[in-house]
Amino acid sequence: MTEKPLVISSPLPRTLDLIFTPERLAELRAHYRIVETTDEELPNLPAGVLAEARYIIGQPPIDSALLARLANLRCIFNVESNLYMNMPYDEVFQRGIHVVTTGAVFAQPVAEIGLGLALSLLRQIAEADADFRAGREKWGGEGNTRARLLAGSDVAILGFGDLGKATARVLSGFRPRLRVYDPWLAPQQIRAAGAEPVDLHTALTQSDVIFVTASVTSENEGFLGAKAFASMRPGAAFILLSRAGVVDFEALMDAVASGHIVAASDVFPEEPLPLDHRVRKLDGFLRSAHRAGAMDVVFAEMGEMVLQDMALLDKGLPPQLCRRAERETVARMRSKPVKVN
Amino acid sequence: MTEKPLVISSPLPRTLDLIFTPERLAELRAHYRIVETTDEELPNLPAGVLAEARYIIGQPPIDSALLARLANLRCIFNVESNLYMNMPYDEVFQRGIHVVTTGAVFAQPVAEIGLGLALSLLRQIAEADADFRAGREKWGGEGNTRARLLAGSDVAILGFGDLGKATARVLSGFRPRLRVYDPWLAPQQIRAAGAEPVDLHTALTQSDVIFVTASVTSENEGFLGAKAFASMRPGAAFILLSRAGVVDFEALMDAVASGHIVAASDVFPEEPLPLDHRVRKLDGFLRSAHRAGAMDVVFAEMGEMVLQDMALLDKGLPPQLCRRAERETVARMRSKPVKVN
Amino acid sequence: MTEKPLVISSPLPRTLDLIFTPERLAELRAHYRIVETTDEELPNLPAGVLAEARYIIGQPPIDSALLARLANLRCIFNVESNLYMNMPYDEVFQRGIHVVTTGAVFAQPVAEIGLGLALSLLRQIAEADADFRAGREKWGGEGNTRARLLAGSDVAILGFGDLGKATARVLSGFRPRLRVYDPWLAPQQIRAAGAEPVDLHTALTQSDVIFVTASVTSENEGFLGAKAFASMRPGAAFILLSRAGVVDFEALMDAVASGHIVAASDVFPEEPLPLDHRVRKLDGFLRSAHRAGAMDVVFAEMGEMVLQDMALLDKGLPPQLCRRAERETVARMRSKPVKVN
Amino acid sequence: MTEKPLVISSPLPRTLDLIFTPERLAELRAHYRIVETTDEELPNLPAGVLAEARYIIGQPPIDSALLARLANLRCIFNVESNLYMNMPYDEVFQRGIHVVTTGAVFAQPVAEIGLGLALSLLRQIAEADADFRAGREKWGGEGNTRARLLAGSDVAILGFGDLGKATARVLSGFRPRLRVYDPWLAPQQIRAAGAEPVDLHTALTQSDVIFVTASVTSENEGFLGAKAFASMRPGAAFILLSRAGVVDFEALMDAVASGHIVAASDVFPEEPLPLDHRVRKLDGFLRSAHRAGAMDVVFAEMGEMVLQDMALLDKGLPPQLCRRAERETVARMRSKPVKVN
Repeated sequence: MTEKPLVISSPLPRTLDLIFTPERLAELRAHYRIVETTDEELPNLPAGVLAEARYIIGQPPIDSALLARLANLRCIFNVESNLYMNMPYDEVFQRGIHVVTTGAVFAQPVAEIGLGLALSLLRQIAEADADFRAGREKWGGEGNTRARLLAGSDVAILGFGDLGKATARVLSGFRPRLRVYDPWLAPQQIRAAGAEPVDLHTALTQSDVIFVTASVTSENEGFLGAKAFASMRPGAAFILLSRAGVVDFEALMDAVASGHIVAASDVFPEEPLPLDHRVRKLDGFLRSAHRAGAMDVVFAEMGEMVLQDMALLDKGLPPQLCRRAERETVARMRSKPVKVN
Repeated sequence: MTEKPLVISSPLPRTLDLIFTPERLAELRAHYRIVETTDEELPNLPAGVLAEARYIIGQPPIDSALLARLANLRCIFNVESNLYMNMPYDEVFQRGIHVVTTGAVFAQPVAEIGLGLALSLLRQIAEADADFRAGREKWGGEGNTRARLLAGSDVAILGFGDLGKATARVLSGFRPRLRVYDPWLAPQQIRAAGAEPVDLHTALTQSDVIFVTASVTSENEGFLGAKAFASMRPGAAFILLSRAGVVDFEALMDAVASGHIVAASDVFPEEPLPLDHRVRKLDGFLRSAHRAGAMDVVFAEMGEMVLQDMALLDKGLPPQLCRRAERETVARMRSKPVKVN
Repeated sequence: MTEKPLVISSPLPRTLDLIFTPERLAELRAHYRIVETTDEELPNLPAGVLAEARYIIGQPPIDSALLARLANLRCIFNVESNLYMNMPYDEVFQRGIHVVTTGAVFAQPVAEIGLGLALSLLRQIAEADADFRAGREKWGGEGNTRARLLAGSDVAILGFGDLGKATARVLSGFRPRLRVYDPWLAPQQIRAAGAEPVDLHTALTQSDVIFVTASVTSENEGFLGAKAFASMRPGAAFILLSRAGVVDFEALMDAVASGHIVAASDVFPEEPLPLDHRVRKLDGFLRSAHRAGAMDVVFAEMGEMVLQDMALLDKGLPPQLCRRAERETVARMRSKPVKVN
Repeated sequence: MTEKPLVISSPLPRTLDLIFTPERLAELRAHYRIVETTDEELPNLPAGVLAEARYIIGQPPIDSALLARLANLRCIFNVESNLYMNMPYDEVFQRGIHVVTTGAVFAQPVAEIGLGLALSLLRQIAEADADFRAGREKWGGEGNTRARLLAGSDVAILGFGDLGKATARVLSGFRPRLRVYDPWLAPQQIRAAGAEPVDLHTALTQSDVIFVTASVTSENEGFLGAKAFASMRPGAAFILLSRAGVVDFEALMDAVASGHIVAASDVFPEEPLPLDHRVRKLDGFLRSAHRAGAMDVVFAEMGEMVLQDMALLDKGLPPQLCRRAERETVARMRSKPVKVN
C-alpha cells in the first residue's frame, strides 16, 4: 500500500482548527500526513520531509534553494489569501507548482454586509435607529426626505473578481442597471454576468450606488480621489469593501462632509483607527471595523476548498476552487495581508 | 364626439399631486373630467355628476342611497389602500363595481428596507456603527461573534401577498431556503414562487430569519405572542414590516430583552410613540418610524397604476394592476388606514 | 358533527379518474359527498341535493330556475376549461358564485412543446432527421445555412395569460429580448415579468420568433392574416399554440409556402384534418396534432387545483389556483371546448 | 512611436474571414501586423518575424527548435479548438506561453440544439410531424402516450465544462432537478451552479434525461456502454452532444432498438456516415449530422474572443475569454479535430 501524501502546514495567522471543521480536519489527517511547522522552522525540516511534501498550507518565505529541495511540491495553499512577494514566483511557475489562495470564501460575507451597508445608506437605517433611540425620530414620509429605492437604480461595481461577482449576485433580486469597471477583464466576461462593461468615468458619473471591490494593485493605489468623488451624482452612495488603499481617504471624507455623497466603509487607512480620527463623527458615513469577512463559518470554508482541490491535484488534475496566482499579476498585488483573523 | 368620462376625486390623505407625477396628472386631466370634492361634500354633488361618474379616486363613505345615485360607477380606486367598512360592499359587488387598492406600490420599498433591517441585524451594522462612533468598536473577527450569513439560511415569510412576494424577490440572490406561511393561499401558489408552504409552527421554529408581512385581519390580531417568540431559534432575527397589530408587542420586546431573539420593526402599537417607551432603549432591537413605504417616488406609482387600470376599464376590461377587494375577505381586513402620508 | 359538504360532479369530457390521481380522489371522497350525475340529469336531482350543493365539478347548462335551486352554490369548477355561454353569468356573479377554470394546467406542457417546436424550426431538427433517415443529410456548417440562435434573439409573445407567462419562463435561460403584445393587460404587468409591452405591429415586425398564445375572443378572431405575415422579418419563426381561430390559416400557409417565414402549429382549422389538406406536405411547416397539452400527468394536476381551491373556499376564502371567469370578459371568449381529452 | 505587435496567422481549417466579422478583422489589422502563413511554411518564415511574433492564430506543429526561435511569443490562439499533441507543451508552459482555445463559442449553439433534441424526444416532435405528413397522425391525448414533461424532471449532465454549463443555463427555465457528473471538477463548483454533484452511477440511474457534454479524454473513451444504458430508467432520453468516442455506439443503438431508452445524437463514429448505417432507420433515435455548433454567427464569435484576449495580453494580463490548455490535462485530451468547419 502506498503511503499517504505529505502536507506541510504553517497557516499563520490562521490555524488548522480555524480553517477546518473537526470533521474536515479528521478527513485531512486521514488522507495525508501533516507536518506542522512554522515559517521560521520550515527550512530546517528534514530533507526527506521537504523532498516528499506534495502540498504546503500557508505562505512561508521560500528561496530558490529551499524551493529546489521541495522536489515534489505541487501546490501551495495560501490560506491568508493575500500574496507576499516572498518566493521566487518565476521558478515556482516554471516548475508548474500552483500557488492558490482561498480568499474567495470572503466574497459572500463581504457582499452581504456590502448590500446591508448600501441599504442602510439608502434608507438611513442606522441613523434613523439612533434618532429613534434618542427620541428625535421622524415618522413616515417626513423621515424619508433622503430615502432612495435600490430597485431599478444605476449601480456600479469597481472590480469584478469573486467579491464583485458575489455583489452582483446579492443584488440580482433588485434588478438594478448594473455597470462594471474592471480593466483586468474582457468586456464579454462582464456581459456574460448580465452587467455592462464601462470605463471608470462612466461608472463614477452614471451611478446611484457604487461598490468598490477591487484589490489594491501596483496600478490602482489611490485611484479614487477628490476628482472621482466630485464627479459622482449628488447623493450617490459609495461603499468601500476591499482595501482603503484604493481611495484617497481624506478626499472621501471631504466629499461626505460636504454633503455631496454618502459613504460606508469596512476598511480604513489605519486599523485599528486612532480614537480621534475624523471619520468617527462624520455624518453621512457608515463605519464597519474590518468585520466584513472575518466570520468563523467563513474561515471553515477555506479547509473545504483546500480538501476538494487537494483531491483533484491528487488525481493529477489542476485545482479548481482556490484562486490561482498568475505569472502576469502576482507581482502587481498590493493588498496587505492581515495580522489577525 | 363623446365626452370624456367623469372621475370624482377625494383621495385623502393623499392628494392628486402626491400620487401623480405632473406628466401623469396632465394625462389624467386630458382623458377624464375630474370633479374634485371631499368625502363630506360628495353626497351633495349634482345628481348628474353622481350619475355620470365612472370612477372614484378615494375612499369616501358611501351608503346605499348614494350608491344608487352613482349609476355608472365602475371602479373605486382606494389610494389610501386600507379598506374601511364605510360602504355596502355586498351591493357594490352585486353591481359588479370594482373596489381596488394601490397598496402594491409599497411592496418594493418595504421589502427593500426589510432586507436592510435583516442584514443590519445579522451583521450588527447599526450597532457596530454606533460603537465605532463612540470609539469602542471591535475589529475583525472579534466584532463578529454574533454575525451570521444570510446565504443558505432558513428564512420564513409570514403572509405572502404583494409584500411577501417582493421580499422573496429581493432575497433571491441569497438563495435562502425559503418557507412561507399564508393560510389564505393555496400551497401550489407558494411552490410556484419557489418557496415551501409550511404551517406557522414550522415557520417559527425552523427559521434563522422571519419576515412578517401579513396584514392584520379579524383572524390574526396578535397571533404572534410570547409562545411564538419562545419557539424561535436562539439568536433568530424577527423583522416586522406590516402592522404592529399582528404581534403582542410586549411579548416581542420581552423576547428581545431576554436575548433569545433579535428584532427590527417599522411599525409600533402607537404611532408616534411616547418618548419613554421601553422599545427606544432596547438592545437587540432595530427601530424604524413607519418609514418603510412612504417615499415620494412610491406614491407617484399609485397614479401610474390608476391610469393604466382606468385604460383597461375604459375598454370594458377588468383592472389588473390594482388589488381588488374581494367579497370573502373585505370584511376581515383590520389594518388601520394611515392619517399622514 | 357536521356533515361533509356536497359536490355535484359532471366533468365531461373529463372523468374524475382522469383529473384526480387515486390518492387525490380518495381525499376528495373523504372530505366531500360526491353526487355523480350528467349534464342532462342535473336538473332532475332531488331538490335537497341541489339546495345543498356547495360545488359543481363540470360545466353543465344552468338556467335561472336551476340556479335559484342551487341555493348554496359557491363555485363551479369548469374542468374542460373553455367557457360555454350556457348559464346566466350575470346572476351567477351577482350571487358571488365563482366560475373557475383549470386550464392553467396546460400552460407548462404547451410552453414546453412550444419551445421544442421553435428550436426545431430554428435548427431544422425534424427536417434534418428526415434527411438523415433518407440518406441526404448535410454535415456540419453545410447543414446550417438556415440555422439560427435563440439566445439573444428578438422574441414576441402574443397573449400573456398563463400560457404566455409559461412560455416566457421556459425561454428565460436563453435571455431573449422579449416583447409582449396583450391588449387585456396593463403595460406595468408585462414589465414586471421582464418583458417589454409593445403594440401588435412592433411585435410582428421586430421579432425573430413569435409565439401565439392568445385565446380566441370576440375581438381577435383571425387577427393574424396575410398582412401580418408579410410584415414579419424574412425567415422568422411563427409558432401557433393556442387556437387556429386567431389566424387566417390559408394566409399562414401561403406565407410559409412563399418561403417568407417558417411556422409550427399545434392547432388547425379542422381537427382532425382531411388527409388531403395542403398543410400536410408544406415544407417549412412543422405540425403537431393538438397534442401540446393533453398529457395524463397534466390532467391529474386539475384535481390538485380543484382540491386546493375547495379547501380555501371551505374556509370562506376566494379560490386562488383556478382562473376565475370575469364579468367583463366571460362573454368575449370564443375558444371552442374540446370533445376529446 | 512603437510598431504594432506581430501576429502569425495559420488558422486552418478556419480562415480569418470566417472567424472575424469584417469590422473585427479591420480592427485586428489596425492593431497588429498580420503575417499570414501555413503550418508548413511557418518554420521558413524570416528569423526576425519568428523572433518578433507575439501571438499565433492557429495550431501549427512546433518543435523545440522552432519554439526557441519564437522568442517573444505570449499566446497561441488555437481556433480549431481541439488540442493536437504537436508541440512541446512542457516547454511552452515553462516559458509561460499561453495556449488557448476558442471552443467555448460552441457551447451556446450546441446547448440550444441539445435542448431542442431533448424536447423533440420527450414530445415526439420530429416523429409526430413525419406521421402528420404521412396522414397517420394521432390527435390529442392519443398522440401523447409516450409524452413527458421536462419541468421538474430529473436531468443529468455528464461533463460540466462550457457546454455543460450552457446546457444547465438553457434548462434553467424548466427548474429541473439537475445532477452533474464531472470527475475533473470540485463538488463545490457544481453546487455553486445550482446542481448536485453525483457519481456516474447515480447520474445514469436517477435521470429522465441525460445530456452528454464531456470531451473525449484518455480516461473516458467509450465509458458509456451496454451496462450504462441498461442501468438507465426505462424510457429515459439520452442526448449525445460532444463526441461519439465517449460511447459504445453499437450498445447505444441496441439500447434504443430494444425500446429501453430513446436517444439523439449530433456525433457519430464515422462522419460522414455510410448510407447503409443502421442508425439511419432506427426508431426512437433522432439524428443530427454534426450540425450543433457549426454556425457562421458562432465562428464569428471566435475572433471577438481572440481580440479581447489579445487586448488583455497586450496589457501584460492573462487571457480571460479563451480557455487555457493546462499542464495537467493537455495530454489527456482525445477529441479529434474537425477537418471542415
